[in-house]
Amino acid sequence: MKTISLFAEIEEDMLKVEQELLKIVQVDNLLLTEASTHLLQAGGKRLRPAFVLLAGRYNNGSLEQLLPLAVALELIHMARLVHDDVIDASLTRRVVPTVKACWGNRVSMHTGDYLFAVALKLVSQYEDPRILRILADVSVKMVEGEVQQIITAFDVEQGLRDYLYRIKRKTALLISTSCGLGAIASGAPPSIVGGLMRYGHYVGMAFQITDDLLDLTSTEAELGKAVGSDLSQGIITLPVIYTLQTEPIGSHLRELIRNIEKEGQGLEEALDLVRQGPGIKKAMALTNRYIDKAKRELNWLPDQSTRDTLINVAEFISYRKF
Amino acid sequence: MKTISLFAEIEEDMLKVEQELLKIVQVDNLLLTEASTHLLQAGGKRLRPAFVLLAGRYNNGSLEQLLPLAVALELIHMARLVHDDVIDASLTRRVVPTVKACWGNRVSMHTGDYLFAVALKLVSQYEDPRILRILADVSVKMVEGEVQQIITAFDVEQGLRDYLYRIKRKTALLISTSCGLGAIASGAPPSIVGGLMRYGHYVGMAFQITDDLLDLTSTEAELGKAVGSDLSQGIITLPVIYTLQTEPIGSHLRELIRNIEKEGQGLEEALDLVRQGPGIKKAMALTNRYIDKAKRELNWLPDQSTRDTLINVAEFISYRKF
Repeated sequence: MKTISLFAEIEEDMLKVEQELLKIVQVDNLLLTEASTHLLQAGGKRLRPAFVLLAGRYNNGSLEQLLPLAVALELIHMARLVHDDVIDASLTRRVVPTVKACWGNRVSMHTGDYLFAVALKLVSQYEDPRILRILADVSVKMVEGEVQQIITAFDVEQGLRDYLYRIKRKTALLISTSCGLGAIASGAPPSIVGGLMRYGHYVGMAFQITDDLLDLTSTEAELGKAVGSDLSQGIITLPVIYTLQTEPIGSHLRELIRNIEKEGQGLEEALDLVRQGPGIKKAMALTNRYIDKAKRELNWLPDQSTRDTLINVAEFISYRKF
Repeated sequence: MKTISLFAEIEEDMLKVEQELLKIVQVDNLLLTEASTHLLQAGGKRLRPAFVLLAGRYNNGSLEQLLPLAVALELIHMARLVHDDVIDASLTRRVVPTVKACWGNRVSMHTGDYLFAVALKLVSQYEDPRILRILADVSVKMVEGEVQQIITAFDVEQGLRDYLYRIKRKTALLISTSCGLGAIASGAPPSIVGGLMRYGHYVGMAFQITDDLLDLTSTEAELGKAVGSDLSQGIITLPVIYTLQTEPIGSHLRELIRNIEKEGQGLEEALDLVRQGPGIKKAMALTNRYIDKAKRELNWLPDQSTRDTLINVAEFISYRKF
């Protein structure tokens, strides 16, 4: 599992999050336990629990106050990831799904539902009604983002606004919520809750843009999955949008993307075009603007070691390679 | 849409439930609105909202107190139904899924997630923490039931206990919860909440056994779907279990079911065997025992018009044809 030394401040507590995650999915039902444990052991950065714990530190929140929430937020994130495994039509049009992959559909779906329900059980321990209100609202918006990603697949006419709408729902909202709820659960005043939520929003936006950049600029070895998988699925990310808006390569890219959709060919050429165009640099610049905004939010919050950690996390986001 | 005149007492309120259901799924996202509206307009008995409203009457609950909960419980039920549409491997082993059916996988999943999240938003309006606690617990158990149905598919060695475990989670729990939460939301004392939850449990068990009976004894015209679909998917229902336990037809049925699983043949012969055996009658007898238990629970509750309605609902359950 990839651990981030940035989180040294909360290292012990993060170990407890990890233990609790593994413990909570051990249930009577062997299939659910196996699927959930498999997912957990596949790793993950555990960013959301880390943000819950760090945000909670601003008001000296205890682990007891924060642990159920930290675990719940990772479970909600995992539930979404496993639902992402449910096979889409566009993926099966050219590739015949294996029996195992297809059997996986139902099990993926049930496992996701299960993890989400377990998260709700954890959340139901809290008395503060804001926690469920915020999580329910975010859950609605996250689905809207997923569906929007289906609707806008291979749509070469979309712009920056469409992209920002999607990544806000896909990533930034849950990170912002992790920060906000960590503060709420520790009893922090509204000014700290608000500041941390805005910090989380900006960090989350930067995180997703970086993720989308890595899908174009990284190697398969570093990434642990095929490079260019977004564009192969028709997911139009920011560097692609910027390239589409630049002539004459924009028109050429438009044709190539239509070809990927219709014939399943031309992906490598399209990726090269995006890599050569101005999109990568422009997207990196936007990431940095979000990082700056995130750090600026922290200026308004009390000065303490947690603030330094959050600044480091924000900076790490744009330099990471995985 | 099939309406049940039994619910005359709450007819006006049920209309408001219907309006609210249609209103709440009208969102910005056209695909989600269309999928949800389609689901709603496909009908349904709206049993769960009816139980919420009827249970709430025991403590003179107002529509304002009960409406969000009634709508939420129907949405949770619908979310489960639409997730049931996600194609299972056993179904695609012999039938190649069409592109449309496969595209439906992701949309079915997202629509289910969406409806569940909207239900949570409604639930988050309530201050009483018991409501989320009960719903979260039921949500976990419902998934356990679904997964158990996959695990026990075509398992001819299962018994009554396996069956009761599944139908409790599949149906009885959410009906019991509808009754219990209707009482809780109206501020009823624990004695009434407990009695109504037990009533709902027994009615729910009877309802699912009847549902499983109809899949064997009804006609396609009455049922609106193919007869014998449970057994064709490997779902072993109560009359089948009873028949499997009766020799010599039990051994014959065992062979036929193995044949359905392996070759996809022998369904009609298996269905005839179950219809001729003692399973149907024995299952009907168990339904009646549950109905009696349900009615007995009502004897402990205050005598009022709602009690008569709930008695009628319980009796209707075992005589229904759809």
